[in-house]
Amino acid sequence: MGLFITFEGVEGCGKSTQIALLGEYIGKSGLDVLTIREPGGTPTGEAVRRILLDSNSEIGPMAELLLYEACRAELVLKVIRPALKAGKVVISDRFMDSTVAYQGYGRGLDIEAIKRLNRLVVGETVPDLTILLDCDPEAGLRRAISRIEKGKGPREDRFEREEIAFHKRVRDGFLSIAKEEKRVSVVDASPPREIASIHGEICDIMEKMGY
Amino acid sequence: MGLFITFEGVEGCGKSTQIALLGEYIGKSGLDVLTIREPGGTPTGEAVRRILLDSNSEIGPMAELLLYEACRAELVLKVIRPALKAGKVVISDRFMDSTVAYQGYGRGLDIEAIKRLNRLVVGETVPDLTILLDCDPEAGLRRAISRIEKGKGPREDRFEREEIAFHKRVRDGFLSIAKEEKRVSVVDASPPREIASIHGEICDIMEKMGY
Repeated sequence: MGLFITFEGVEGCGKSTQIALLGEYIGKSGLDVLTIREPGGTPTGEAVRRILLDSNSEIGPMAELLLYEACRAELVLKVIRPALKAGKVVISDRFMDSTVAYQGYGRGLDIEAIKRLNRLVVGETVPDLTILLDCDPEAGLRRAISRIEKGKGPREDRFEREEIAFHKRVRDGFLSIAKEEKRVSVVDASPPREIASIHGEICDIMEKMGY
Repeated sequence: MGLFITFEGVEGCGKSTQIALLGEYIGKSGLDVLTIREPGGTPTGEAVRRILLDSNSEIGPMAELLLYEACRAELVLKVIRPALKAGKVVISDRFMDSTVAYQGYGRGLDIEAIKRLNRLVVGETVPDLTILLDCDPEAGLRRAISRIEKGKGPREDRFEREEIAFHKRVRDGFLSIAKEEKRVSVVDASPPREIASIHGEICDIMEKMGY
């Protein structure tokens, strides 16, 4: 069986950059790395992703939760499990903890109900390691917005339009999950910390865990 | 508060016809009737419906379940609850029992987990009355297929392609639910029973229940 790593954190915390660096680092050791993103990654998931990220669709919080879980179910069944079975290292940009943080802590849906739903949907496919890139939401959003202005990132989506209080609840949610779950390692990713320094700490965590 | 009636049954059991007749019957008494169908009925629901009914998309059973529940969450929030609050009679073509019958008894997903998910999604919005049009699946499918051949119905969808054993499990599932849930009334809808006779029995049930 392979290794399943997930990256979590608020918007603009630097997940994409760190995932690319870690993928490269692991790839050097000769392992096969598969990088995926949630929601999406399957034909059904991509179709649902378009519905979810469309800022014009006003989706209720419960339907939003269920659409994310539907994408996840497809991703687990068709991509993650086969890749792990083939011995690959799977790195996912967001996974089950994002649902608890965004839809539970952020939107106020029942947190225990979301955790039960996560367990139903992922089954045994729980990450071996989760890197939480912890970052002040205001700094993260500034980064996300400057990326949009430079034309390097996707246009503003439904979550980026949320007010700062929402993103603060999401950050607190992630930190609560990290306290409960042994698999989650918190890495400080707030500015002015350098990309290379964050990457170094992630590599240290990997090594300490024997990967 | 209004009245919430759902119609359930295997493909081709005659739901659409009986819903139209009941809607007309209730409408005569001056009540405001809203007829809806699952999945669909909201912008998000219709978008998801297209993904679900597209025979080319090979959706896993868990994602299928979650997509149906997402449509239902939107329908409950944006259509059913406001209509009931406005005192209307809402008649739905399929609702929560179809999920237990198709995804649980039919596809083999955990029946108790589906019931828990249903409760999470619908909350207090449980039907006041459910009419189960019970019909031999082979007769029902013959009816559904002849409807397609006559060009009167939609093209064959993912469920109509399933083998007859699947539809028999679905029928047995509906009958099991009817035994457990007081709100469900079973009405024999197998050929050669006449449409008018079935409609008469449904009106009798309504009257006996004091509606």
